Amino acid sequence: MSANKAVVLLSGGLDSATTLAIARSQGYTCYCMSFLYGQRHGIELEAAKRVAVSMGAAEHRVIKIDLAQFGHSALTDESITVPKDRPELGMPSNTQQIPITYVPARNTIFLSYALAWSEVLSCFDIFIGVNAMDYSGYPDCRGEFITAFQEMANLATAAAVTGPRKYLIHTPIIEMTKAQIILKGTELGLDYGLTHSCYDPKDGLACGHCDSCQLRLKGFAEANLKDPVQYA
Amino acid sequence: MSANKAVVLLSGGLDSATTLAIARSQGYTCYCMSFLYGQRHGIELEAAKRVAVSMGAAEHRVIKIDLAQFGHSALTDESITVPKDRPELGMPSNTQQIPITYVPARNTIFLSYALAWSEVLSCFDIFIGVNAMDYSGYPDCRGEFITAFQEMANLATAAAVTGPRKYLIHTPIIEMTKAQIILKGTELGLDYGLTHSCYDPKDGLACGHCDSCQLRLKGFAEANLKDPVQYA
Repeated sequence: MSANKAVVLLSGGLDSATTLAIARSQGYTCYCMSFLYGQRHGIELEAAKRVAVSMGAAEHRVIKIDLAQFGHSALTDESITVPKDRPELGMPSNTQQIPITYVPARNTIFLSYALAWSEVLSCFDIFIGVNAMDYSGYPDCRGEFITAFQEMANLATAAAVTGPRKYLIHTPIIEMTKAQIILKGTELGLDYGLTHSCYDPKDGLACGHCDSCQLRLKGFAEANLKDPVQYA
Repeated sequence: MSANKAVVLLSGGLDSATTLAIARSQGYTCYCMSFLYGQRHGIELEAAKRVAVSMGAAEHRVIKIDLAQFGHSALTDESITVPKDRPELGMPSNTQQIPITYVPARNTIFLSYALAWSEVLSCFDIFIGVNAMDYSGYPDCRGEFITAFQEMANLATAAAVTGPRKYLIHTPIIEMTKAQIILKGTELGLDYGLTHSCYDPKDGLACGHCDSCQLRLKGFAEANLKDPVQYA
């Protein structure tokens, strides 16, 4: 087992929880970072806390930032409705519009904070649960974005100027289907009942109809497993 | 005159104020963005507000973020002393250590927020007053970092996927000496008495001995101009 540290971005959803389980299985001591960014569903932060504890994180830091002031996303702007039962969800990504749940520059900002914390921790490994397969159409979930961020990170920081080690942005689930992700996490002992995926929960229950619920339910169905989360 | 919008990062210091003056002189409608990031000298935000007004900014937004929690910089950590009268300040940058006033990943985080706002404003021009000549030894003030950030930005955002326009990160003063910067701003009508540079002000007065004051004073001396700011 390696004693290396890793910063793991953790939203409390299925993808990032699995990413944490994978980082841990690779021997990393995990420093989890979540964001309270004006999202409608602060409930996912409670999920992030549960997951971090269950996966033995060394520390879990919640950063409060204000992305809601920029508006323009159904995830942060109360005046925009979260779309439900979208027929185009299963279509190839190049025929999709960017969905209204896209938050401007969100992963860029999240990774920038992860980079700041990594620099302070003298840690060179950052894990992010982006996924390009069961793709929601977000530009900042693609491999070419991650590669470009990694190159930038290695020019941005003191470590890049003074040290021999380079930052590595790990995306262990980027090429997995949702079913493969769920099977991997289950194999690693992750309890998906602790996670939360819904964009538009009511009374703490998942709606079952937003993009995120639909992708999740499809994943569990394909994995031949029952989703332990309760739906409205 | 172009009617293009630009997001301009504005600290309230000499470099960013001049950068704003240059952006305005190029015909951009300027949207200024400053950060309250746990820095000791919130006094520089007052300077940013004065400068934005005097330069006719369309909007000035102050984003509150918490970089102090990461510590490790004399600018955000009260337990670290701001160095004074450093003899190595004039030395070539490759012989310098990275100074303790470096804030981890600061410009990466600032530019990420500028990118988010640009995306919402449908704006593709971002100005930042980094300077590699009178160089303080910060890795995130170098041209290669800016170029890498620009490439990343063009893969990160909806505009990169759906639109024909590309983000451009403008660094108009990157190759100027401090004296050249001051002469340029003066030519453009900027009142440097509105700006604030000191890392360690006392009772609103600049200390005259930190890296930032020393570079500023050297610049005014070389420009044969009197610095209108008051020193302790």
